[in-house]
Amino acid sequence: MTVLDPIAAEPPTIDVPRGLKGVVVAETTVGDVRGEEGFYHYRQYSAIDLAEQRPLEDVWRLMIDGALPITTAERAAFVAEVSTLRSVPPAVAAVLPSIAHVSEPLEGLRTALSLAAADRGMRPNIDIGHNAQRADALFLCAVTPTLLCALHRLRAGLEPVAPRSDLGYAANYLWMMNGAEPSPDHARAIEQYLISTVDHGFNASTFTGRVVASTGADLGACVTAAIGALSGPLHGGAPSRALALLDEVGSPARIDEVIRPMIVEGAKIMGFGHPVYRTDDPRSVMLRGVAQRIAVDAKARAFVDFAIEVEAAVLGLLDELKPGRRLHTNVEFYAGVVMELCGVPRSMFTPTFASSRVIGWCANILEQAADNKIIRPSARYVGTPAPQTCPPLR
Amino acid sequence: MTVLDPIAAEPPTIDVPRGLKGVVVAETTVGDVRGEEGFYHYRQYSAIDLAEQRPLEDVWRLMIDGALPITTAERAAFVAEVSTLRSVPPAVAAVLPSIAHVSEPLEGLRTALSLAAADRGMRPNIDIGHNAQRADALFLCAVTPTLLCALHRLRAGLEPVAPRSDLGYAANYLWMMNGAEPSPDHARAIEQYLISTVDHGFNASTFTGRVVASTGADLGACVTAAIGALSGPLHGGAPSRALALLDEVGSPARIDEVIRPMIVEGAKIMGFGHPVYRTDDPRSVMLRGVAQRIAVDAKARAFVDFAIEVEAAVLGLLDELKPGRRLHTNVEFYAGVVMELCGVPRSMFTPTFASSRVIGWCANILEQAADNKIIRPSARYVGTPAPQTCPPLR
Repeated sequence: MTVLDPIAAEPPTIDVPRGLKGVVVAETTVGDVRGEEGFYHYRQYSAIDLAEQRPLEDVWRLMIDGALPITTAERAAFVAEVSTLRSVPPAVAAVLPSIAHVSEPLEGLRTALSLAAADRGMRPNIDIGHNAQRADALFLCAVTPTLLCALHRLRAGLEPVAPRSDLGYAANYLWMMNGAEPSPDHARAIEQYLISTVDHGFNASTFTGRVVASTGADLGACVTAAIGALSGPLHGGAPSRALALLDEVGSPARIDEVIRPMIVEGAKIMGFGHPVYRTDDPRSVMLRGVAQRIAVDAKARAFVDFAIEVEAAVLGLLDELKPGRRLHTNVEFYAGVVMELCGVPRSMFTPTFASSRVIGWCANILEQAADNKIIRPSARYVGTPAPQTCPPLR
Repeated sequence: MTVLDPIAAEPPTIDVPRGLKGVVVAETTVGDVRGEEGFYHYRQYSAIDLAEQRPLEDVWRLMIDGALPITTAERAAFVAEVSTLRSVPPAVAAVLPSIAHVSEPLEGLRTALSLAAADRGMRPNIDIGHNAQRADALFLCAVTPTLLCALHRLRAGLEPVAPRSDLGYAANYLWMMNGAEPSPDHARAIEQYLISTVDHGFNASTFTGRVVASTGADLGACVTAAIGALSGPLHGGAPSRALALLDEVGSPARIDEVIRPMIVEGAKIMGFGHPVYRTDDPRSVMLRGVAQRIAVDAKARAFVDFAIEVEAAVLGLLDELKPGRRLHTNVEFYAGVVMELCGVPRSMFTPTFASSRVIGWCANILEQAADNKIIRPSARYVGTPAPQTCPPLR
């Protein structure tokens, strides 16, 4: 668009696999997924190590600022900075009931964040420096959990619960969702789930956010777009579907009778199989441990034991009926179990996933904005050859 | 995500040019741009032929249903179908003043369409058939101009003007924007501009819409995302910037004095140069003719003559100072002139572009939804090797 652009020869047309599978569209320092190893990382750290050793705010800082806090003062400074950003701006709060009235929480988040970005007067990334972009990103990440919980409560006919700056990220999230302070165990369990879902390679929503960022658009435009991609059933998934499977099975005695015909008929078995991992999904392994850890009463223990029994039976049946497929339990399965144990309603499962993934989106969008070139691929026209003469109207 | 997926070997990592330039990511029958020829088409017809011979509703039908109407009855049926969809749903109308209060029209459209999609109860494309997807698409395309005009008027402190089903697309658009019925000449001029901007290959917003569609998400999620991409200064452009250049030049005598130093210093000359065309932008050529046709009074004629003089001088200076660059006038230049002559305020130039481009987005989204595979590329991790041990907190 500028007179400085030299005229490049048209590049040769490059054919790639459908869905861009295996096509390297960017270099990144945000993180990576190594599917064959069953390993993924944020910056240079194992995501699972982070989920086991750090609070979410540390990981948030790592993703946005590039480094973990290494002193308590650094941690406290970041926590103080982001906890002031949790409140819903008044112009958005005023219309939230109207949004909630017609929207599921994730749809409502898309609308509310779009409005919040405009209300904040966000300017195109290409017109502002990194510090302003970072401030926009922290705001969007901080306000997302508050918006989701308020939308959920309004939809249920309840008053929103204001955020509390004395609570950590996950404890505050459950507080705003349920209006009751969670046990430290439950807060930590949800925090570990949230940390484990902050980022995961160039998934469709992250890529969407980067394509929008490549046009120079503001953070709000990028994140709104990414939410739309996450809402797609082929991407965002639904941990609630794995619970629905457990409900359908009902009891250990019925596992074979319910699951075997599903596999034989080629039905989807929710919670199993992943497009990237060819081993155990490391998130599944961690979340199984989390579920076992927090199942302290008899009912919870029975539920977790049942889930583990179903998992083992499904894997056994898959091995028997679809040998060589290397299908493993994915993140959805125990994510659903953990959220159910911690009192997250099923309608908030995918929104809860979005509440932490927004941090990964923002890290990717900031990276894209820092070294930008517009993403504009090609398509091959395969219709009737053009131009044909426009037919007259009879 | 399904047990039916065979386990493919990891594909080899494929490197492609930055920004996916020249990379064929899909086959399409929607249309194409032939940059070297200065030609682009919708389906099998020249877009310029369509803009010269047909009303917008015919082109809309071509894009969404795949065929031009060839009888007056076919045309009338489509016009009747879409003109009933122009009204803003009450749940959206109720919050539009709040949205307009904090949003520029294009930002406001992003929020309002997101809300309208939820209010309509749009379901994921992957869960519904083509007819339901088509109905969602027609709704989004039909309500977009109404929303944009209402947001513009509310922001200016004016009451929205209700759509009129007795007016054609462009006449109704100018009616809703200005509250006055336009002359047939102005309505036709804007209609030709709108037709010429319905689609233009795999630009960033169209690609964004298709990436979101590839997740199975609903039409509202896809279009909301595309609006975000269009809002980026590197994509949506701003015909108002070309007018700002004319304002800065001020008079024919000042052309050389203003433009020459800009080119020498490497500044952007708005309205010139395009990433795809290496010849005249066919939209620019057509819109220059439209501008000349509607300049019927002395003031308008002087304005158009001045614009033509500036264009010629800029092209001459570019040829002199940057020989071999093959830079031509792009769509922005005369789009700004035509909209100014027709009474479109500058703040509505890019929104007006969006009001027709939504038709091209929807045609692409429907095509993606009909033959879908999730778009999920890869990135190359180039950060500090992982895993490193998480540092302890001091």
